[in-house]
Amino acid sequence: MAGTAVKVTWYTAGAALDFWFDFASTYSYPAALRIRPLAREAGVTVRFRPFLLGPIFKVQGWNTSPFNVYPAKGQHMWHDLERVCADLALPFRRPEPFPQNSLLAARVALIGLDREWGEDFCVEVYRAQFGEGGRIDSADAIAAILAGMQIPAAPVLEAAQSDANKSRLRVQTEEAQKLGVFGAPSFITTDGELFWGNDRLDQALRWAKRAS
Amino acid sequence: MAGTAVKVTWYTAGAALDFWFDFASTYSYPAALRIRPLAREAGVTVRFRPFLLGPIFKVQGWNTSPFNVYPAKGQHMWHDLERVCADLALPFRRPEPFPQNSLLAARVALIGLDREWGEDFCVEVYRAQFGEGGRIDSADAIAAILAGMQIPAAPVLEAAQSDANKSRLRVQTEEAQKLGVFGAPSFITTDGELFWGNDRLDQALRWAKRAS
Repeated sequence: MAGTAVKVTWYTAGAALDFWFDFASTYSYPAALRIRPLAREAGVTVRFRPFLLGPIFKVQGWNTSPFNVYPAKGQHMWHDLERVCADLALPFRRPEPFPQNSLLAARVALIGLDREWGEDFCVEVYRAQFGEGGRIDSADAIAAILAGMQIPAAPVLEAAQSDANKSRLRVQTEEAQKLGVFGAPSFITTDGELFWGNDRLDQALRWAKRAS
Repeated sequence: MAGTAVKVTWYTAGAALDFWFDFASTYSYPAALRIRPLAREAGVTVRFRPFLLGPIFKVQGWNTSPFNVYPAKGQHMWHDLERVCADLALPFRRPEPFPQNSLLAARVALIGLDREWGEDFCVEVYRAQFGEGGRIDSADAIAAILAGMQIPAAPVLEAAQSDANKSRLRVQTEEAQKLGVFGAPSFITTDGELFWGNDRLDQALRWAKRAS
């Protein structure tokens, strides 16, 4: 299965929304778990676009999550995320350490998003990390997630770590930066409107619908 | 009118919520305009609590609004606020300069909140600043807002600038800091739950109701 590249075509006709996320981003967890059913209901096609926040944060002078840079904000975020997940009936468990290195997960997601299991993989990574408080920052952790999805891990990990795929993630991260993405989750409509945060998912879907 | 101090009693019985805000805070504008009708509907008593973000931001190393410190975030905020206001059918006009010095407005609000016109004054200050894009950072601007409310400005401004009232605002700002407030608007329920942001107003009201 891992060898078959089924390229998903990106809809340019009809309502569409780009979902930009970093696997280490806390509020991307509820967004990733909500976006597919909500988009289906709204008649909007969503494209999952993993990228890395690290290089973007570095430009702002941060070497870690702003939730670590500003502890009062971080303390509120964990508590708020717990309340948000409770309202959505999503399991929540705070992972340690935070943030986790999301590089390998993002590379694997790019491979998966060319095939049919990419979006499910993204959801499983978020669930493992923020639903179960597990780690996602090692080849073993990612292999376990793939195994849980009945996907042979070795060829996927090899493809993920190829120079071509590494460069693809760099390019995608640069694209995010050029589009003005400064945090995650971010949603961008086909007419270029940027919405930041899980709290803006519904508004972004409405905008995508209107813009189509 | 300005001479009659009618102290408003704070309800301890029944559902109650503290609304913490700085007049320079952008997202406090939709919160201030929404909170009274929403709270009435929810059966929650709200206490308006103006404070100053400046000393709190200084601890985090900022000498101006984080929206100025981080321009990408600031750019998104203005555009997002415009969309949020459009959704709520609230007028919006970006004020210059930003942020404005909110010291005098906060001092006057404290005087008003001891009388019957405090909440209306808060709403009018936000409307003048973010609905009309006007200034709120001078005695003339505040006097004009009071005049529009048929309140003689001179005695109010004098009371606002008294040592006792200045110290009261300092104490209130210290209280916000002790409660963990790090941004505005913030909402705190009687059981100590802190909610940050206009996006959390509905959740905070539900919590206040449950906690009572």
